[in-house]
Amino acid sequence: MTTRSHCQALDAQDPLAPLRHQFALPEGVIYLDGNSLGARPVAALERAQAVIAQEWGNGLIRSWNSAGWADLSQRLGNRLAPLIGARDGEVVITDTTSINLFKVLSAALSVQRQRQPKRKVIVSEASNFPTDLYIAEGLTELLQQGYSLRLVNSPDELPQAIDGDVAVVMLTHVNYKTGYMYDMQALTALSHECGALSLWDLAHSAGAVPIDLHKASADYAIGCTYKYLNGGPGSQAFVWVNPALVDVVRQPLSGWFGHSRQFAMEPAYAPSAGIARYLCGTQPITSLAMVECGLEIFAQTDMASLRTKSLALTDLFIALVEARCAAHGLVLITPREHAKRGSHVSFEHPEGYAVIQALIARGVIGDYREPRIMRFGFTPLYTSFTEVFDAVEILGEILDNRTWDQPQFKVRNSVT
Amino acid sequence: MTTRSHCQALDAQDPLAPLRHQFALPEGVIYLDGNSLGARPVAALERAQAVIAQEWGNGLIRSWNSAGWADLSQRLGNRLAPLIGARDGEVVITDTTSINLFKVLSAALSVQRQRQPKRKVIVSEASNFPTDLYIAEGLTELLQQGYSLRLVNSPDELPQAIDGDVAVVMLTHVNYKTGYMYDMQALTALSHECGALSLWDLAHSAGAVPIDLHKASADYAIGCTYKYLNGGPGSQAFVWVNPALVDVVRQPLSGWFGHSRQFAMEPAYAPSAGIARYLCGTQPITSLAMVECGLEIFAQTDMASLRTKSLALTDLFIALVEARCAAHGLVLITPREHAKRGSHVSFEHPEGYAVIQALIARGVIGDYREPRIMRFGFTPLYTSFTEVFDAVEILGEILDNRTWDQPQFKVRNSVT
Repeated sequence: MTTRSHCQALDAQDPLAPLRHQFALPEGVIYLDGNSLGARPVAALERAQAVIAQEWGNGLIRSWNSAGWADLSQRLGNRLAPLIGARDGEVVITDTTSINLFKVLSAALSVQRQRQPKRKVIVSEASNFPTDLYIAEGLTELLQQGYSLRLVNSPDELPQAIDGDVAVVMLTHVNYKTGYMYDMQALTALSHECGALSLWDLAHSAGAVPIDLHKASADYAIGCTYKYLNGGPGSQAFVWVNPALVDVVRQPLSGWFGHSRQFAMEPAYAPSAGIARYLCGTQPITSLAMVECGLEIFAQTDMASLRTKSLALTDLFIALVEARCAAHGLVLITPREHAKRGSHVSFEHPEGYAVIQALIARGVIGDYREPRIMRFGFTPLYTSFTEVFDAVEILGEILDNRTWDQPQFKVRNSVT
Repeated sequence: MTTRSHCQALDAQDPLAPLRHQFALPEGVIYLDGNSLGARPVAALERAQAVIAQEWGNGLIRSWNSAGWADLSQRLGNRLAPLIGARDGEVVITDTTSINLFKVLSAALSVQRQRQPKRKVIVSEASNFPTDLYIAEGLTELLQQGYSLRLVNSPDELPQAIDGDVAVVMLTHVNYKTGYMYDMQALTALSHECGALSLWDLAHSAGAVPIDLHKASADYAIGCTYKYLNGGPGSQAFVWVNPALVDVVRQPLSGWFGHSRQFAMEPAYAPSAGIARYLCGTQPITSLAMVECGLEIFAQTDMASLRTKSLALTDLFIALVEARCAAHGLVLITPREHAKRGSHVSFEHPEGYAVIQALIARGVIGDYREPRIMRFGFTPLYTSFTEVFDAVEILGEILDNRTWDQPQFKVRNSVT
């Protein structure tokens, strides 16, 4: 079994280790939940102070021009684009993942209404992140006219499910529960061969694994900035549309920020060319501005280096848990195969909820997902190998001593 | 004509004057654009620092529970409710005005689909704020099946336009250009008599004029917190639904925050009871948290006192401009009648854009709206009578001297 001193040696050699100092992490905490809410970049506080005190307080309405608020969604989109294999002018950061999904899913159905109007099925998987399914359900109920959602129970069922009725295949690249990662290029090709459009939710992969939307020939993508991208609590989401499709239809959440002449104040909508038509209303600027601080840290490295460390961290965690906690019946539900693994690792345990609460009480923050799933996120920008070792040691102690078997660890609260 | 010393006397007697100290306003500026972006409450900076440094930085994911992020939209909604005649548990603050309009407009059409399925027309006015019309247009295009938008050119045309085909009457209570205020109760009654539902956009009236949604028997309302409510740049919008309608249908932007068992992570959507079903995705928390700072200032006064001062400020401004600037052909387009006036005043001038730019250069911040409209907002929480006097004096000098007739004041930029 790997020793703590070996982990310390890995940290000493880690070229990414210096980036940790750009994050403000609390003392006494091992944070393995960056897949749920990323840690705070040190720079975010100062950036927000400038937005609030100078730009809002002193600049007031003038800051829409002078501080660049008016095109902040586009400028930040350009900074994010290289992380997902998108190009300049193809991404905006705005609204929430759910809202952006509604935009692109509606657009995809509108494209198919023009091209192959009999295709009215959205294919996804039952274990997709629930909000994606709820949005698809909300859209099909609104549209009526035979639109429906078809869910598969495992990735293996997809080839059969994607038939001649399918308009869109809507998948999350890395599963939020298991950490299973799809082969984006292969699934997109399969969708296209069957005449369907391909829509990817990158919530658990942007900033976590290399993504090349153009190479995969994807049609639509959305994702989150508050997880691996460290944008801040609930920070705005992103949306990308393949340039071949972006101007084909309008999207229905067509607010004034998507108008080609926003301040002409015309009563009829005329969509902007390009991805700007996926903007809608005025964005909460303070939160949006902080997204840049996370992206600035990514600009100092590259996704290949991050992926190498991510896999080393998740490999180490799996090996250590399976060695140290072998007696306690944990079941790994994350793929061992690198090509199928994102940057988080999940184990099932019958008392998973209580174990996670006991871990948090010891300063090791992971999270729990129904049913029985203990989930641990590894964020190569700030997670060290020694932290992984220490976290597993604490997990082992909690399981050995049945520390979790106390009433206070079994009280369900809402989020973690 | 009212003198400056008379205005100083009015300020000395103004019971609201002390509230100005709770705002951080820049030196040398007379801010008459709080109807576009409210000024910064002093407390907002400290609140944001606490959210970023303590809640995000130290609390990390735990803050969803420990810092109350999970139900912040509801708690802030309860604080806002009294300002619009709503009750506890009826309002949430979330997303943008445009997005919230899509939710309630879709819901209204769904209600009518159940009750009176032949009604497929949305009535509004051509001079409504454009994003409202764009959203309605986006929705009708998405739905097809004969849904359409019918626009009137003046409030007088409404009685004729609201016929047996109309599903919803969608109006903005105070017009963004002219400051014209509808009689909410009368128009709602007219809509109901004709079998239509009544939807109000309160963007330019929440925090500006007294509103009683229950007394008016309104069906749906949305509005903005970054104008008169001083929530911060682009801060989240609010949504209210009459309790008699809120549980009748789901709304289509049905994200996981609207689910009745959010963390059960079920694949099928089950809407929360009440206004929580109008929540959708994860909100930008830092921006949302600052909304409370503006609402805390409103809690120290009441809308009747604010309305009294607002009318005194707008009366004074109109009288002073018409006296001091009589030679320059300004045309008042805001109603003189109190019952028909919001809290901003607009004058037309052929060179309105350049005049506003020249005013801003002198530290008097109003804004410009197409065509030819110079718009001035009066916010009784922080605008003084002496500022009104000084602003008009500077306007008079700019017009007398044709200061506006310089090239730098004619360059069009995007917002002000």
